[in-house]
Amino acid sequence: MSSITASVLVGPKELVLETRSLCAPGPDECQVAVKSTTLCGSDLHYYNHFANGDFKVRESLSLGHESAGEVIAVGANVTDLKPGDRVALEVGISCLECDLCRRGKYNLCSKMQFRSSAKSFPHFQGTLQEKINHPASLCHKIPSSISYNAAALIEPLSVAIHSSRRSGVTAGDKVLVFGAGAVGLFCAAMAAVSGASTIAIADISPGRVDFAVSQGFATHGYVVPLGPRPTTTEDKLESARSIADELTALKMSADDDETFGSFDIAFECTGVESCIQASIYAAKAGGKVMFVGMGSPIQTLHIGAAMTREVDLLGVFRYANAYPTAISLLRQKKIPAFESLVTHKFSGLQNVHAAFEVAGKTSDGDGKLVIKTVINF
Amino acid sequence: MSSITASVLVGPKELVLETRSLCAPGPDECQVAVKSTTLCGSDLHYYNHFANGDFKVRESLSLGHESAGEVIAVGANVTDLKPGDRVALEVGISCLECDLCRRGKYNLCSKMQFRSSAKSFPHFQGTLQEKINHPASLCHKIPSSISYNAAALIEPLSVAIHSSRRSGVTAGDKVLVFGAGAVGLFCAAMAAVSGASTIAIADISPGRVDFAVSQGFATHGYVVPLGPRPTTTEDKLESARSIADELTALKMSADDDETFGSFDIAFECTGVESCIQASIYAAKAGGKVMFVGMGSPIQTLHIGAAMTREVDLLGVFRYANAYPTAISLLRQKKIPAFESLVTHKFSGLQNVHAAFEVAGKTSDGDGKLVIKTVINF
Amino acid sequence: MSSITASVLVGPKELVLETRSLCAPGPDECQVAVKSTTLCGSDLHYYNHFANGDFKVRESLSLGHESAGEVIAVGANVTDLKPGDRVALEVGISCLECDLCRRGKYNLCSKMQFRSSAKSFPHFQGTLQEKINHPASLCHKIPSSISYNAAALIEPLSVAIHSSRRSGVTAGDKVLVFGAGAVGLFCAAMAAVSGASTIAIADISPGRVDFAVSQGFATHGYVVPLGPRPTTTEDKLESARSIADELTALKMSADDDETFGSFDIAFECTGVESCIQASIYAAKAGGKVMFVGMGSPIQTLHIGAAMTREVDLLGVFRYANAYPTAISLLRQKKIPAFESLVTHKFSGLQNVHAAFEVAGKTSDGDGKLVIKTVINF
Amino acid sequence: MSSITASVLVGPKELVLETRSLCAPGPDECQVAVKSTTLCGSDLHYYNHFANGDFKVRESLSLGHESAGEVIAVGANVTDLKPGDRVALEVGISCLECDLCRRGKYNLCSKMQFRSSAKSFPHFQGTLQEKINHPASLCHKIPSSISYNAAALIEPLSVAIHSSRRSGVTAGDKVLVFGAGAVGLFCAAMAAVSGASTIAIADISPGRVDFAVSQGFATHGYVVPLGPRPTTTEDKLESARSIADELTALKMSADDDETFGSFDIAFECTGVESCIQASIYAAKAGGKVMFVGMGSPIQTLHIGAAMTREVDLLGVFRYANAYPTAISLLRQKKIPAFESLVTHKFSGLQNVHAAFEVAGKTSDGDGKLVIKTVINF
Repeated sequence: MSSITASVLVGPKELVLETRSLCAPGPDECQVAVKSTTLCGSDLHYYNHFANGDFKVRESLSLGHESAGEVIAVGANVTDLKPGDRVALEVGISCLECDLCRRGKYNLCSKMQFRSSAKSFPHFQGTLQEKINHPASLCHKIPSSISYNAAALIEPLSVAIHSSRRSGVTAGDKVLVFGAGAVGLFCAAMAAVSGASTIAIADISPGRVDFAVSQGFATHGYVVPLGPRPTTTEDKLESARSIADELTALKMSADDDETFGSFDIAFECTGVESCIQASIYAAKAGGKVMFVGMGSPIQTLHIGAAMTREVDLLGVFRYANAYPTAISLLRQKKIPAFESLVTHKFSGLQNVHAAFEVAGKTSDGDGKLVIKTVINF
Repeated sequence: MSSITASVLVGPKELVLETRSLCAPGPDECQVAVKSTTLCGSDLHYYNHFANGDFKVRESLSLGHESAGEVIAVGANVTDLKPGDRVALEVGISCLECDLCRRGKYNLCSKMQFRSSAKSFPHFQGTLQEKINHPASLCHKIPSSISYNAAALIEPLSVAIHSSRRSGVTAGDKVLVFGAGAVGLFCAAMAAVSGASTIAIADISPGRVDFAVSQGFATHGYVVPLGPRPTTTEDKLESARSIADELTALKMSADDDETFGSFDIAFECTGVESCIQASIYAAKAGGKVMFVGMGSPIQTLHIGAAMTREVDLLGVFRYANAYPTAISLLRQKKIPAFESLVTHKFSGLQNVHAAFEVAGKTSDGDGKLVIKTVINF
Repeated sequence: MSSITASVLVGPKELVLETRSLCAPGPDECQVAVKSTTLCGSDLHYYNHFANGDFKVRESLSLGHESAGEVIAVGANVTDLKPGDRVALEVGISCLECDLCRRGKYNLCSKMQFRSSAKSFPHFQGTLQEKINHPASLCHKIPSSISYNAAALIEPLSVAIHSSRRSGVTAGDKVLVFGAGAVGLFCAAMAAVSGASTIAIADISPGRVDFAVSQGFATHGYVVPLGPRPTTTEDKLESARSIADELTALKMSADDDETFGSFDIAFECTGVESCIQASIYAAKAGGKVMFVGMGSPIQTLHIGAAMTREVDLLGVFRYANAYPTAISLLRQKKIPAFESLVTHKFSGLQNVHAAFEVAGKTSDGDGKLVIKTVINF
Repeated sequence: MSSITASVLVGPKELVLETRSLCAPGPDECQVAVKSTTLCGSDLHYYNHFANGDFKVRESLSLGHESAGEVIAVGANVTDLKPGDRVALEVGISCLECDLCRRGKYNLCSKMQFRSSAKSFPHFQGTLQEKINHPASLCHKIPSSISYNAAALIEPLSVAIHSSRRSGVTAGDKVLVFGAGAVGLFCAAMAAVSGASTIAIADISPGRVDFAVSQGFATHGYVVPLGPRPTTTEDKLESARSIADELTALKMSADDDETFGSFDIAFECTGVESCIQASIYAAKAGGKVMFVGMGSPIQTLHIGAAMTREVDLLGVFRYANAYPTAISLLRQKKIPAFESLVTHKFSGLQNVHAAFEVAGKTSDGDGKLVIKTVINF
């Protein structure tokens, strides 16, 4: 039994350092010294509201689930890992035995426990702790060529890997991405990795669109115009149609008259109704709209425009079997500007508060774009 | 050039017999004497409103697109068919050369011409005519063991074949069907043919539910309760949830405590928002909801309940490559009560009016259930 | 700790009853009183040769892996099952944690332990024992409507379920099955369950072919002619071609001139080179040949005839996720003559020897066809 | 009717220039002035043997089927193309109406006519002619950024696109390619485009392996050792096993101890039995071996090693729906060294003979590697 420090949330925006006891790792576990944790939107919800949707925090909760660290001890049955190994942490623990787990869809396991979530009680604590014990089979070894920060980013990359797999994106496809945050950027990256030849990214933030294109995540950018917000369903649909029309009319290049036309696949990473609707309109007959972003759960959509053209509407919930893929891609540097997403770095668990304050903004005090915030400790 | 009689629509509920000229079949065409046409919901829309949604009739229009007949002449290039052959007519003509056609999705061809539709002008005339010329490759030869009426029903069966294919329904699946009209019954039948072990069918009409179960299309029936209609979105969703709860709580059999639980696949054949919503709730994580029925194009749905459980929402638009499959199934009598759907028969083009009047009702003057009406001529 | 009787193999054809100790079930295990075990070809190999291919028996080995029984005790963590429950036993235990397990292909797990196999040492003992302890998640509860003998047969049925899934057999397909033993019959049954409209079964035994067709497993039968055995590769291929030609020329029915033509899918359940070759020739362009039966591992095949027509050659190794499907199908009686395969029944572990002697023949002393032999105890 | 010059084969290695008449394009055709034709192995077979396998040349035959050119006239129905447009020529004409065509597998159409082939008589003439008339729907428009030589190479690239699609290669995969000729290089390129992270290419020619790696087609190279040729089946298999062992033991990088391990997918582009066998051994359980290269049609393989590990054996025959994909990829420069394959250029139809002489060698008189030879005219 050892004593560790954890950053824990005890109220809205109230983070304190807590001393906790940590037992030795179980027979199938590793003990990992966490080195890097990047912050995610769901962490931010907990931080701001002491809740995430319906899940209210009921005891002090360590946040953080995008993490990597160093193995410092292993249980008796662990043979694949040893102290000193560097690992990316897959933080969702499924039962492995139910029908969904056995069929390879363990992300949908009804018994899934996910770190830094208040869904179950006691809460399954997150990774903003010095050390944790974690199932060895979910500690994915990384080579020295992958940094801890890059390894922490494997978590959101995994969402994009799962999205691209479910989408069936393939060589030569034209892809649309709504939302140029971390997940949107990674969806664009995975589309490119999977052979999509043109990738248009759309966001309301010109800075994010510019980042996405200049860093090579997307081939084309589109800033969603912010006019007066339509109020009737009819006006909303017309507005979405107009955005879709502009997207499909994008030119391939300055010296090539060819326009995009409809998209094989749209990755909708905002959860915003108008973007979902524009995605449906912009998709080609026989295409797909991937629901990656979570927004308002109840949406009014022009379902007829999807079904009569057989545009599939496919949800994406976390990921399964994505970490080995991610490591294989990063090892070979298949995503060039991968770590450029980490725009702001903080050191030490005492600075988690400052990191969350920056993570909640789109640009920092100096006007610099904020995408991902990391805490190294 | 010969002279033929056609039943044509000239106004709402106004059908007249018209004499038309018919030229010899083109080199790749057959001339077919139509023997049987069953009536469909879209025909009924035209009949009642002289329009179908946005498509307004602008010239006299022969209705009918579920048909079979006898080949009476063939063009110069036609070698697979000869006069006397009996054929089922696939009435959608696609371009065969566009990307979607070449990829096997010819039902989505943007140049598709479909008989008895006012979408294009001049209208592509339907099959309520004595004789038509039709591409030989879309005249599917049937053996003597398949009646003309059964062959006419291949058209709605094809929608169900296409639905079941897109759904990936497979051996052992639990299936839900909303809507016990012809397409719903055939979706149930195709689920059974494809190995679904339990098939619950839901409809507001006790007569239809009873028919579905007693004729062996479904294993279990459920009559959707008709309470006071909810007005708020919240009440609507609660009502849908309650229907889903009752469906998943259905018992497997009187002497087996096992309940259905969630469904692998729901075929939604009504187009009604509350049924779509109940389908989403009743589907299991990783399952599918097939949008087969066309209803109001704009729907307010609990999208979050689909996406966070990766319940795919897949539209179905007509069919591709389904006729040979249908003939293969009917030849081997894989759908036992197939023809029982034809509840009302009329003889001669002069009786199309009477047929439509019955087709518009759920039960006839004697209280007998109406499912499909046929005209033989 | 209790004392149980086991039937164990101690030499070629040498079976003795042994008294063994059985501890209480582990926390995630059930203790099951075995009620029914059907014998399989691999059991028979061990029985006859005290080895199965390269796997030599090195200690007394209980055979049997097609089994069902009654739960008599459960471990501390087991909540889904209780004493008195009737269960079918899935006897392959995979690691659940490796890449293949996590992707839903647990049948390919390199750490798989399979009962009644001498692959690993100590051997993983089979089910010809009074009682065994077994992981609760692999004890599949069956309703009272499924007999223990039927439940034992779920094991070979699972091979057929896995084969049909991998084949993608679908409604309307024309299917060929080589080999009318238990697995071939079940492959035919699963093809029918999955919607195949015509199923031709081929075997050298007229009795087996007759059984397959008369019991409704196949729609058409073909007795493979036994002429002088060809010796050159050229003659072998010509002979295979000739068999394929006869199979594709089979008539649909006495009153229907239509012939089969090429097959969408061939399930090759014999492992015999000439049957594999005939399967390739008989498959249609774009079709599939499923390698279900294990024969000589090294084969000389006309690979060109497969690859230039894109006839996929797909192996089948055991099964994954098949038991729940099987139970769902049996519960609803989707395979009519399912239990008719059990042609010979023996009672008590002391009669295993007699059962194996019959299982090794194609017909018993009275000339009755032998397909499956069961031991009830 | 105009007069054109064609390079025609009239005997083994006997090419002459012939003057032919060309009529105006049919209503659905374009007339194309051919600008570039690259030579292929099947052309070379005809050139050397006046036959290709069973297909003997029976009249003067223009070779060439990898081509691009400029539209100079269009038929009455052609609206998408106009004179001056630059096009890549897809030279296989399928019927579009048969079951395989309608299902999107037009490459398997039994009525396929393919240019520069002696399969049918009269032969369907190839593209080593000044001008040809060709179906407009198979003249794929290319932008000015794609050269005619690159456009000619779309034909072999299409084989690779089709291979990669059928293989299901996906992000993070480890891929093996046997054969570093044009098709092997393009299979490697398409694997990279599709997200494969590591691609090992194997060939007996060190020069080709070096080219493949240095030009970025593969990440790792392996020169197949040429020892004494084994004569018994057992020795052949052992030799193949040894090659597979070396391939799976390749190190990821100099500073990374990780070895390849088994491959997700092997693209076998040589048709050589030992390479096919090594591919089977090197593939991982659940993996795939793609039969891309055509060699001896009859092969002796360790089929058991494939089937018990569910390694799928999938043939590849030409391509379907690949040209639009290829153009989309080339437009965005997704294959960096694409044109580097054209190692030798010839100008004018009178130099076809010289081009074939070079094409038949692995290195030219100066010792420079020969991969692809082009004729521009």
